[in-house]
Amino acid sequence: MAGRVKEFNEFRAKMNERILGEDHRAIKRFFGVDTLTYEPGAVDAKTKEMLGLVASMVLRCDDCVSYHIIECKKEGVTDAELFDVFSVALVVGGSIVIPHLRRAVAFLDEYNAQDAQP
Amino acid sequence: MAGRVKEFNEFRAKMNERILGEDHRAIKRFFGVDTLTYEPGAVDAKTKEMLGLVASMVLRCDDCVSYHIIECKKEGVTDAELFDVFSVALVVGGSIVIPHLRRAVAFLDEYNAQDAQP
Amino acid sequence: MAGRVKEFNEFRAKMNERILGEDHRAIKRFFGVDTLTYEPGAVDAKTKEMLGLVASMVLRCDDCVSYHIIECKKEGVTDAELFDVFSVALVVGGSIVIPHLRRAVAFLDEYNAQDAQP
Amino acid sequence: MAGRVKEFNEFRAKMNERILGEDHRAIKRFFGVDTLTYEPGAVDAKTKEMLGLVASMVLRCDDCVSYHIIECKKEGVTDAELFDVFSVALVVGGSIVIPHLRRAVAFLDEYNAQDAQP
Amino acid sequence: MAGRVKEFNEFRAKMNERILGEDHRAIKRFFGVDTLTYEPGAVDAKTKEMLGLVASMVLRCDDCVSYHIIECKKEGVTDAELFDVFSVALVVGGSIVIPHLRRAVAFLDEYNAQDAQP
Amino acid sequence: MAGRVKEFNEFRAKMNERILGEDHRAIKRFFGVDTLTYEPGAVDAKTKEMLGLVASMVLRCDDCVSYHIIECKKEGVTDAELFDVFSVALVVGGSIVIPHLRRAVAFLDEYNAQDAQP
Repeated sequence: MAGRVKEFNEFRAKMNERILGEDHRAIKRFFGVDTLTYEPGAVDAKTKEMLGLVASMVLRCDDCVSYHIIECKKEGVTDAELFDVFSVALVVGGSIVIPHLRRAVAFLDEYNAQDAQP
Repeated sequence: MAGRVKEFNEFRAKMNERILGEDHRAIKRFFGVDTLTYEPGAVDAKTKEMLGLVASMVLRCDDCVSYHIIECKKEGVTDAELFDVFSVALVVGGSIVIPHLRRAVAFLDEYNAQDAQP
Repeated sequence: MAGRVKEFNEFRAKMNERILGEDHRAIKRFFGVDTLTYEPGAVDAKTKEMLGLVASMVLRCDDCVSYHIIECKKEGVTDAELFDVFSVALVVGGSIVIPHLRRAVAFLDEYNAQDAQP
Repeated sequence: MAGRVKEFNEFRAKMNERILGEDHRAIKRFFGVDTLTYEPGAVDAKTKEMLGLVASMVLRCDDCVSYHIIECKKEGVTDAELFDVFSVALVVGGSIVIPHLRRAVAFLDEYNAQDAQP
Repeated sequence: MAGRVKEFNEFRAKMNERILGEDHRAIKRFFGVDTLTYEPGAVDAKTKEMLGLVASMVLRCDDCVSYHIIECKKEGVTDAELFDVFSVALVVGGSIVIPHLRRAVAFLDEYNAQDAQP
Repeated sequence: MAGRVKEFNEFRAKMNERILGEDHRAIKRFFGVDTLTYEPGAVDAKTKEMLGLVASMVLRCDDCVSYHIIECKKEGVTDAELFDVFSVALVVGGSIVIPHLRRAVAFLDEYNAQDAQP
């Protein structure tokens, strides 16, 4: 991995470890619920990641968007499906979402480029 | 239809007609894009409605939540699936979503009750 | 005045008096700054009210929208101009704004109807 | 209890029971974490309720504000302290908070009135 | 053009081209409606850009703010008028807007500096 | 002071001076109210800074969070208390707060490290 994707993952891993190392009960349990939420249930894991992505995008959190793009790709969401998710976020959230869409697509392109490397 | 569901649908229909009757180009086209967005594409219509629902819930718009619950039910989303969507909205959006979750479930129960009538 | 417009104005006036009667310095000064902001300056009062309206609408505050519709009408903003303001709010803020647009137009219609009374 | 306070508490209790009765793991655990968060820790319960109140107010959730006003009163927060919390919410969140402030003060007055009854 | 203004414009142009090149119908039409909205109508283009600016600022989107500052300057909005727009955004949106105001003014100063170059 | 903390403080001071130098009445008065709000009243200054911190965190403004962390530390808020404030923000605001929590803790660690220097 290189560039933005690598940097994002490393800072995320390092700070999550730092935060959980504080051993704060409510914070730790919140992180536990967060993980539990995306496990397959009545709705499968792939769809749940798309739900997490669209929610992150209308709330305009670039890091959350980056995270869910990675998870979507791991669950086999295609780029065409991602653009459908993006379109729902754009229409629900409005033009204020556009700068986040630009960064999301730039992140996706970097993610795909790294995957294509030998 | 009775009660809140009927009232919601009637006000929505009446005011949409009033607004589109104004014949404002940008507003009319926005409504057109809104409709187009939920048509099946790479992502099917059922999943798109779930995306619309979770986005509405984290943005905490009761009317949008009511609308997408109705559309989800039409697309065959089960109540178990709806609660999975609710859980993603709750974890992404936080406890601030809870009052909207209460109203969403009350709306869903009223919707289901009317359907069960002979 | 009748109906929603009257009810809105009465509750607003009563509670503002109650709040300012508490004589809390920061709250009183905030209300003072709020009033000062809409006085004509480099930008005239009419345009400032349109700015207040579009800001209220993308932040999805029905009461703020109602208030600024009243102030816009007092400043001579036409209904055609109001729909242009609405269209900017809709495109910037997304479909999540639509339920607030419906209530805004219903409020505007009630406001205009009362004005038309002898 | 009477009026809005009673109605708020009854709907809240009824729907929480309905939602938890669904036995959805992530939702139940989220409600558990929510309760845990306000238990006294490094910060005492009274201050935590004030934190919950200001957070609810800047996020503009009337029901959350009502709930935390009740909890603040139970923890002995005075009305003067509540107005200080309101002032922080107002300045951080802006004039868009004012309609919620009006409803919060109306709710507080009704809560205090019921308490004063023999 | 130099520095932040140039960087902003280049990334924006490159990513818009990338996104529209995907040829996604709903996304393309949304971009079309976005452009249409700011064309002169009952409200002139200059005022519409000020509306877009204040909406972007209360929603706290730095890139949207930068974009509308550029468009406002093209439409002849003076710096004194821009500060009036900023003041409405500040009062409506609260102190949470201040960091975005700082970056907006820094962007404006850089924009003006580049214009002053021979 | 070094790194992010220093950079944050310097940009903040420079731009505040630039903005207040514009001598815009409403903006200047808003800054005055902002300062007044955090002065000790019914609620002490330490608690008010914690209120400002949690409000900034649920509204997801990194710069506001950084500012209130600095002010909290000056008022003697311990790191254990800060994590309690963080936990309220996390539960009220949801997982969308997590990336801001990561940056807040990274900022806190840098702040503490600089303090520990001889």
